Amino acid sequence: MKLGIYGYGNVGKGVELACSQNKDVELVGIFTRRDKSTVTPLLNTKVYNASEIKDFKDKIDVLAICGGSATELPTMTPELAKDFNVVDTFDTHAKIFEHFNNVDKIAKENKHVALISCGWDPGMFSLNRLYANVLLPNGKDYTFWGRGISQGHSDAIRRIDGVLDAKQYTVPIENVVNKILNGETPELTTRQKHLRECYVVAKEGADKNKIENEIKNMPNYFADYDTIVNFITLDELKEKHSGMPHAGFVIRTGTTGKDNEHKHTISYNLNLDSNPEFTAQAIVAFSRALHKEFKRGTTGCLTAFDIRPRDLYVGDYNELLKHML
Amino acid sequence: MKLGIYGYGNVGKGVELACSQNKDVELVGIFTRRDKSTVTPLLNTKVYNASEIKDFKDKIDVLAICGGSATELPTMTPELAKDFNVVDTFDTHAKIFEHFNNVDKIAKENKHVALISCGWDPGMFSLNRLYANVLLPNGKDYTFWGRGISQGHSDAIRRIDGVLDAKQYTVPIENVVNKILNGETPELTTRQKHLRECYVVAKEGADKNKIENEIKNMPNYFADYDTIVNFITLDELKEKHSGMPHAGFVIRTGTTGKDNEHKHTISYNLNLDSNPEFTAQAIVAFSRALHKEFKRGTTGCLTAFDIRPRDLYVGDYNELLKHML
Repeated sequence: MKLGIYGYGNVGKGVELACSQNKDVELVGIFTRRDKSTVTPLLNTKVYNASEIKDFKDKIDVLAICGGSATELPTMTPELAKDFNVVDTFDTHAKIFEHFNNVDKIAKENKHVALISCGWDPGMFSLNRLYANVLLPNGKDYTFWGRGISQGHSDAIRRIDGVLDAKQYTVPIENVVNKILNGETPELTTRQKHLRECYVVAKEGADKNKIENEIKNMPNYFADYDTIVNFITLDELKEKHSGMPHAGFVIRTGTTGKDNEHKHTISYNLNLDSNPEFTAQAIVAFSRALHKEFKRGTTGCLTAFDIRPRDLYVGDYNELLKHML
Repeated sequence: MKLGIYGYGNVGKGVELACSQNKDVELVGIFTRRDKSTVTPLLNTKVYNASEIKDFKDKIDVLAICGGSATELPTMTPELAKDFNVVDTFDTHAKIFEHFNNVDKIAKENKHVALISCGWDPGMFSLNRLYANVLLPNGKDYTFWGRGISQGHSDAIRRIDGVLDAKQYTVPIENVVNKILNGETPELTTRQKHLRECYVVAKEGADKNKIENEIKNMPNYFADYDTIVNFITLDELKEKHSGMPHAGFVIRTGTTGKDNEHKHTISYNLNLDSNPEFTAQAIVAFSRALHKEFKRGTTGCLTAFDIRPRDLYVGDYNELLKHML
């Protein structure tokens, strides 16, 4: 499979590395919106300007689009689906349906296949919600995110007057998670599920109390949560908080039996040192499956829900029957 | 979807109950190898003799075969695949490949579709091994079973001279599981992964020391494990150990990054009050997907690896996009 990377941020870099772990993948090149002379790839990958992508119309089986969900992917994915089979990581849950339909229309018109919202949530977490729901129709879902960096919340803090830099960790409340893993099914408010831990570098002379108050009372982002604000130095932020870890749980508890007397708990847990590199691994695996769908004649937009698990695997089906089933 | 149950043991009973949780399923009947007049269904389900199954050739969309893997399913599933689309729970891992090929041949010849090895392991655990492997090609797998009843090991104890009844729990060694969940990747012997906990009712006058020694030194079943033998009364066995709980973990740890500097852990955990009822829930969900495959013209043998997750769901795809992705 010939893969291209469109957009060379953290996820794009992750895809470059992930290709080296998958022997069936030939990485054609990185397509950057910056001046290509300023981009140094991690491995020996060719770098092209984004504008050169049109020359690769028949030279790439799947194009991994590594752009931002807020402003880039809504136009980028449909546009590139005209000429390529594409995978993206669109993760604005509320707008997935709209994005799906936009991409589906263009992909079908151009006889391409696309897969949107690849990654861990949406992605693997979505798959686990689905599997757990069909196994326990009579049940209750819980999703917890963290401990991990939220880019959106970190950005929101950085926009506050007097803040030089900041990182925000979303933290699931451990004893609540444990209760649910043990079969309890509480009704939980936002505040009872996660807390928010902030590491903030204040500008010299800034009013720290004012910053802290502004963070804690910020609507949508922090006001509904218990929020911890820690002021640290820029050196400390760089040294201790420059990683991109993430984690989370998808849990469903449900009952079976004539009188619902049997309780069952299904849980899926990820613990990731690098959120973008794990997302990139998902992109490569689902690109493999997408390429198989394309060869079968499938067109239009797909999601992880459409992908036969066997198509994700590089090896032979008989191997799966013998060693993994 | 019209479903039939062939074999009315614990799993068959579970399927009967599971049908009542799935509104798209019409349960046509239970087909029993016993005299039907001796079988009382849990719900208002019609009971037929197994020999009457031929009359239902075009009246059942999917037949759930609830027989034993050791001696029944190897012949039962291919035989019934002549006249029906079938799902079974064949779980002898070493013989799955052979069983698959037997069923595949007959199902294709008769233009039916079959799904074998449905349940949690093989089944959901297999799916999770596959997903985790494609996400972390550079990694290491662990599967732990328990705490839960092993029917095979309980039976082995019951065959010992002087034993009236017995139950055996397979127990994963908790601190080892926790180490792996925390990212360690130890090489483990059989003894280091699970221990075996036995509850034994001795016949009056039987030599308990002799029984205990015989259990602990039984090759294949117990000799490679640390085994705890508890002698209890028949009343206590019935009161405290008549449930069929099971549980387990599928864990994969792997690395990404230029120098494999980022560690990731994926874990899937089930905690089941009733092993057969959970297996039955899987049978119903995968029967739904199998029926969709049949309507598409698919023939032959499939496994969970072939099933598009969306096909397991009773509702609309748009619902999935809006609420579960």
